[in-house]
Amino acid sequence: MYTIGLDFGTLSGRAVLVDTRDGGEIAEAVFEYPHAVMDETLPSGKRLPPDWALQHPQDYIDVFANTIPAVLAQGGVDPADVKGIGIDFTASSPMPTKADGTPLCFLAELKDEPHAYIKLWKHHAAQRQADQINETARQMGENWLPRYGGKISSEWFFSKLLQIVQERPDIYAQIDKFVEAADWVIWQLTGVETRNTCTAGYKALVQDGDFPSKAYFKALEPAFENVVDEKIGREFAELGERAGDLTAEMAQMMGLPAGIAVAVANVDAHATAPAVKATEPGVMVMVMGTSTCHILSGADLKEVDGMCGVVKGGVIPGLYGYEAGQSAVGDIFAWFVDNAVPPEYHEAAAGAGIGIHEYLEREAAKQRVGEHGLIALDWWNGNRSTLVDVDLNGMILGMTLATRAPEIYRALIEATAFGTREIIEAFEAKGVEVKELVAAGGLPEKNALLRQIYADITGRTFKLSGSAQAPALGSAMHAAVAAGIYPDIRAAAAHMGKLKEEVVTPIPENQLVYDKLYSEYRLLYDYFGRGCNDVMKRLKAIRHDALS
Amino acid sequence: MYTIGLDFGTLSGRAVLVDTRDGGEIAEAVFEYPHAVMDETLPSGKRLPPDWALQHPQDYIDVFANTIPAVLAQGGVDPADVKGIGIDFTASSPMPTKADGTPLCFLAELKDEPHAYIKLWKHHAAQRQADQINETARQMGENWLPRYGGKISSEWFFSKLLQIVQERPDIYAQIDKFVEAADWVIWQLTGVETRNTCTAGYKALVQDGDFPSKAYFKALEPAFENVVDEKIGREFAELGERAGDLTAEMAQMMGLPAGIAVAVANVDAHATAPAVKATEPGVMVMVMGTSTCHILSGADLKEVDGMCGVVKGGVIPGLYGYEAGQSAVGDIFAWFVDNAVPPEYHEAAAGAGIGIHEYLEREAAKQRVGEHGLIALDWWNGNRSTLVDVDLNGMILGMTLATRAPEIYRALIEATAFGTREIIEAFEAKGVEVKELVAAGGLPEKNALLRQIYADITGRTFKLSGSAQAPALGSAMHAAVAAGIYPDIRAAAAHMGKLKEEVVTPIPENQLVYDKLYSEYRLLYDYFGRGCNDVMKRLKAIRHDALS
Repeated sequence: MYTIGLDFGTLSGRAVLVDTRDGGEIAEAVFEYPHAVMDETLPSGKRLPPDWALQHPQDYIDVFANTIPAVLAQGGVDPADVKGIGIDFTASSPMPTKADGTPLCFLAELKDEPHAYIKLWKHHAAQRQADQINETARQMGENWLPRYGGKISSEWFFSKLLQIVQERPDIYAQIDKFVEAADWVIWQLTGVETRNTCTAGYKALVQDGDFPSKAYFKALEPAFENVVDEKIGREFAELGERAGDLTAEMAQMMGLPAGIAVAVANVDAHATAPAVKATEPGVMVMVMGTSTCHILSGADLKEVDGMCGVVKGGVIPGLYGYEAGQSAVGDIFAWFVDNAVPPEYHEAAAGAGIGIHEYLEREAAKQRVGEHGLIALDWWNGNRSTLVDVDLNGMILGMTLATRAPEIYRALIEATAFGTREIIEAFEAKGVEVKELVAAGGLPEKNALLRQIYADITGRTFKLSGSAQAPALGSAMHAAVAAGIYPDIRAAAAHMGKLKEEVVTPIPENQLVYDKLYSEYRLLYDYFGRGCNDVMKRLKAIRHDALS
Repeated sequence: MYTIGLDFGTLSGRAVLVDTRDGGEIAEAVFEYPHAVMDETLPSGKRLPPDWALQHPQDYIDVFANTIPAVLAQGGVDPADVKGIGIDFTASSPMPTKADGTPLCFLAELKDEPHAYIKLWKHHAAQRQADQINETARQMGENWLPRYGGKISSEWFFSKLLQIVQERPDIYAQIDKFVEAADWVIWQLTGVETRNTCTAGYKALVQDGDFPSKAYFKALEPAFENVVDEKIGREFAELGERAGDLTAEMAQMMGLPAGIAVAVANVDAHATAPAVKATEPGVMVMVMGTSTCHILSGADLKEVDGMCGVVKGGVIPGLYGYEAGQSAVGDIFAWFVDNAVPPEYHEAAAGAGIGIHEYLEREAAKQRVGEHGLIALDWWNGNRSTLVDVDLNGMILGMTLATRAPEIYRALIEATAFGTREIIEAFEAKGVEVKELVAAGGLPEKNALLRQIYADITGRTFKLSGSAQAPALGSAMHAAVAAGIYPDIRAAAAHMGKLKEEVVTPIPENQLVYDKLYSEYRLLYDYFGRGCNDVMKRLKAIRHDALS
């Protein structure tokens, strides 16, 4: 028996056909969104303001239409043996629809209105609204705020909805439903509106089964007093539940049997946890790419400083799912390679027939711990956890005339590992245990030095996902649960989850030196990050003035 | 009438034949030292320990033999019209000789002894001795210490002599004279041992006409009690004085008339001041190259924190000559270009048919002040003034994923200008006025953006030397004074000194922004440089441990 997991990313959707006996990945297909990310213009050519990032919902439907027939054909599998579909999605990427789920942007009269489209997770034009949400919550002493590390993001659900009501009340009035794209896709597959606990919890402030109070919403914005009942709804479905049955129409489009199980939607990083067998407390899952998302389960509810959020059942039913993150990881290494590595290393890499990252890793691996004399702060794109501050930026310290590119490259890898250690210590300070690390993504898979550095710096064993498509595999596992093939996600993970055999353990002599370097990192982290010297914010203000 | 100025640099000596009427540079010749800098082996192949840097005195004689006939021939000048010779030299570059001036390294039995050679200014193996000199002076409350900003350097005269007596007392016993190479060269030209006030004052602790006390030297090292009387002597000659007459033997070797004036030796940076007409208080001369040396005259004696030194008559007779410095300036830009600029800019520069520095300058000049959002500390090679700390190193702060190489290049230029402003403010805080800047060297001559940035950041007009060989021109001016062509260096400077016509003035709107950025620089300067966070020193210690 098979299930299909679909991972909806920023630029494309990917389907993986999975054997439910052992998690074997039979076939895989990718479909690039025709509209990609709309951050300059709408399809009509209408220009968008700065910091906007929209998507087009038709693209998601096209992912189903294109990838599922492809994996069926490629896998040579009888469609009758496919028992379920599960999906995971970027978040928060919400959209306005009519009562029947029709996106506002499908309406002829609204298709030229930016607010009628999906606001992709990286839409950053609602910072003012996020500030207002935070400030109002602080003033009212809202008890949900500490569940989000004390600050919510401009990327989240209500920041984006508040932007609409404040900027275009006329469009707000036409919204019947404001729904995560993840849940909208499930609605399209099943014909039933179903909101998943994961996105609702991490992105829409749902805690202990409910939203913030009407009083809070009214204080935030008078028109918001009944926003939940008017535009959202108060029912949620747990991860792994069956959202509904695949409709005949969608089944026909995809070449699948009608009526098979469709699982409740999930967030991409969170879907990764079961795919790497991380179904019990203490395993920190790191989804590492351009940025890193940390997912961790705990038996108890703890309020951890500067985390992204904690949601009961947000990752594994019955456990508290914790999320933290680092805004730039692979992005920093890519920035460095593109912007600060001189020609000689590019030429040497080409001469060795390997990529520049691999070449620099190889050179950096020859250094002893601490030999480069450098410390960096990994804030090229702000700090998501534990400072929750987008106005911070990067720093490198310790350069001499003898400093060379592979040394800085190594210092940057170390800086991101120090950032992870800071997050781990924030969790453990509040009693949420972190026993080991499991990473997914191309970055840790390709870079052995990075794996060892993370193990050495955090003092934890470091394991790797056995699947290169862990989110999609996780979604296929939830589909298997929804289809009744496994009783719960733990059982599915036991059979279908995959880890590589390699277990990287900390090297004690490296740890001794890294403990010293980490205390230097912490000193600078607090100095620049906690208000002792707000030079980074002042430079940003000066920069803003210069450009305005 | 003509004089010849010779500038003895680190790798070569340069002679310039000058018309004394107007400073016209008639001809110029360079001779590369055959032994260059000996920092790995002696001529015999014997290996040197780390941090050593020696030179061979024969190379200097060869400079005379090669360059002077060359400039005479090239200039088409009748040797009878050449009335004097002046030289300037790196410092402190002292050497041990016998009583008649024969270098110890010329003796067959000592030619394989490293301590028998000239210890070049950049010989850094006497740091322990410098520390001991400073510590003893502090303990004894020596009143000369504040004249050197509170700390003397391992590069200086007594650090190097103390190294000999401590490491090889047997060689120390064979030294009759320990003499600056600058003065040794004059001794060779005239047959008369003459020690110049400039090197003696800045490098050998001579203040108010005398060395530190015997009690001090005894406390420092028992064998040093009578070091001055045994190995040095207590007579000094003022700049511009006639050290003696050119001997017949040297005259013949060079093709010059015997008996012409030989001026007292000088230090390279200090010789630059009259060459750029800086003979009165308030003009800060900046000799800018790999590093920057700041030379400034004042009417009164002031003890300025972290300056390199103050010497009466050390630059201009009758005035207090102040020196300060930045250990790396052009070296930082060269480091950046060689180690942190990606191929696209090198290719673009090549495509535009210009050098990479020029290309980056052009791109950086397009930015508005403060637009890059960056601040750097210019300590890639430590901080000479005002912190006098070789264990400090570089820092850059404010990088985002959008930061590009020309922005960092501009931030590095700004950092060196902030460092100069810090030095200016240290002088002015003690009442030594700095009214304008005059720069010499290829770096400021080539880089118009740098000139404007220095003017904007310091709030001073910025002028350029009219000569590309300002130290040699300055030496030729001192020769003109020694020959009696001019009554003093002021008169010589009035006729022979040269400035370019360009006067760069500060742009008020840039100054407003730079004042803000400078206050950020100062905050970081004090935080990392004055003991608030000694992370740079700790990283250096960790690096040292890693490598040992």
